[in-house]
Amino acid sequence: MTAQLNARGDVAVLVPAAGAGLRLGPGGPKALRLLAGEPLLVHAVRRVAAAPSVRLIIVAAPAADVEAVRALLAPVAPVTVVAGGAERQHSVAAALAAVPEDVGVVLVHDAARALTPPELVESVAAAVRGGCAAVIPVLPVVDTIKEVGSAGAEGPSGPAEVVLGTVDRAVLRSVQTPQGFRRDVLAAAHAAGLAAHTDDAGMVEKAGIPVTCVPGSDLAMKITRPLDLVIAEALLHVA
Amino acid sequence: MTAQLNARGDVAVLVPAAGAGLRLGPGGPKALRLLAGEPLLVHAVRRVAAAPSVRLIIVAAPAADVEAVRALLAPVAPVTVVAGGAERQHSVAAALAAVPEDVGVVLVHDAARALTPPELVESVAAAVRGGCAAVIPVLPVVDTIKEVGSAGAEGPSGPAEVVLGTVDRAVLRSVQTPQGFRRDVLAAAHAAGLAAHTDDAGMVEKAGIPVTCVPGSDLAMKITRPLDLVIAEALLHVA
Repeated sequence: MTAQLNARGDVAVLVPAAGAGLRLGPGGPKALRLLAGEPLLVHAVRRVAAAPSVRLIIVAAPAADVEAVRALLAPVAPVTVVAGGAERQHSVAAALAAVPEDVGVVLVHDAARALTPPELVESVAAAVRGGCAAVIPVLPVVDTIKEVGSAGAEGPSGPAEVVLGTVDRAVLRSVQTPQGFRRDVLAAAHAAGLAAHTDDAGMVEKAGIPVTCVPGSDLAMKITRPLDLVIAEALLHVA
Repeated sequence: MTAQLNARGDVAVLVPAAGAGLRLGPGGPKALRLLAGEPLLVHAVRRVAAAPSVRLIIVAAPAADVEAVRALLAPVAPVTVVAGGAERQHSVAAALAAVPEDVGVVLVHDAARALTPPELVESVAAAVRGGCAAVIPVLPVVDTIKEVGSAGAEGPSGPAEVVLGTVDRAVLRSVQTPQGFRRDVLAAAHAAGLAAHTDDAGMVEKAGIPVTCVPGSDLAMKITRPLDLVIAEALLHVA
């Protein structure tokens, strides 16, 4: 049985959190790293659940931790927890299999983007509902970007890198999540067994489906390094 | 006369801060925006001055504000303030003209990267001293990067953007400052009147000079948007 939030919602949000980085208890958790005393996954799920058009949230956890993750999230929102796979795309596929047939919009979201505002979830979903097959939230690239190559010579930390050229950042975008898909488009890309990509949109893109951009949010930053936790804690007070 | 820090240092650091964004008093200051009660320029200069091999710091301020900037920085470190130009490269050229002949290493630094640690100033300078003609601090690109184009169709905020492809971020680097140069290399690039670039290394790169990368620092982030101030304030406590 699938736990529901808003029964009238048309959106399912999948949160793959079964990677090697997710481990309960002390050690090197990723989705369970604490931010202001709560795991990132809790922050992420709380914000997704606050988006009015979300009918259900499906979290893919390590098989051994399904019950524990279910207990962790039960006080936060009605969430379905399934056993994920070794690779991210296996977790997405496992979560996708739990989506009811009548849900037309499927979003895939990183737990590490724990402060993503409900408004961004809504705007991605709205673009899919409005006819886009695949939608990603993006930000402009603010720093100058160079393409680099190895110089051959050894530097203090391996081969020295030299600049091959300056990239035109005006045409580049930094990609965030949630990424949104028409359910059939995401399902077809998974069925086609397209190779692993850094993001789900890459898989759909490879299938030749157009991917549309919507404006992202600074709050949807990925929290991975210790310094990111410091930044995220500061953002909590303005978010 | 040029104010000196460490007379044995071989490095001059130029800080172009004369752009339209720099205005004293209330309004839209950039280099003078307050972080924890002090202008960004003060934070930046304090950290540069703490790098042992820096002999002098030359700030290019708007002509009308030279005296005020001098007074602002006098309690922070011995700094030379010159009148800058309308464009960034004019300010760099004006500051470069004030560098004594016997200084071999010239760094160009953004005041907006106010929390840049002295260690980064040293590592850029060391690479130039070690034989590199031009040196930039870089960070890996953490988010997925897409190249985008206009879809033709109108979206809610102008023409909709669609993804043209996923860029291989493994070969991309995000560029910071200070950027370091052999003095003659930077002077030659300026004398050649190479067109405006987003960074000084781009000018040298255009002249066909190799540009070497050294590891950057998360603390050297550019502080431009209001949210960056919140982040920078949090980083102050760990910096």
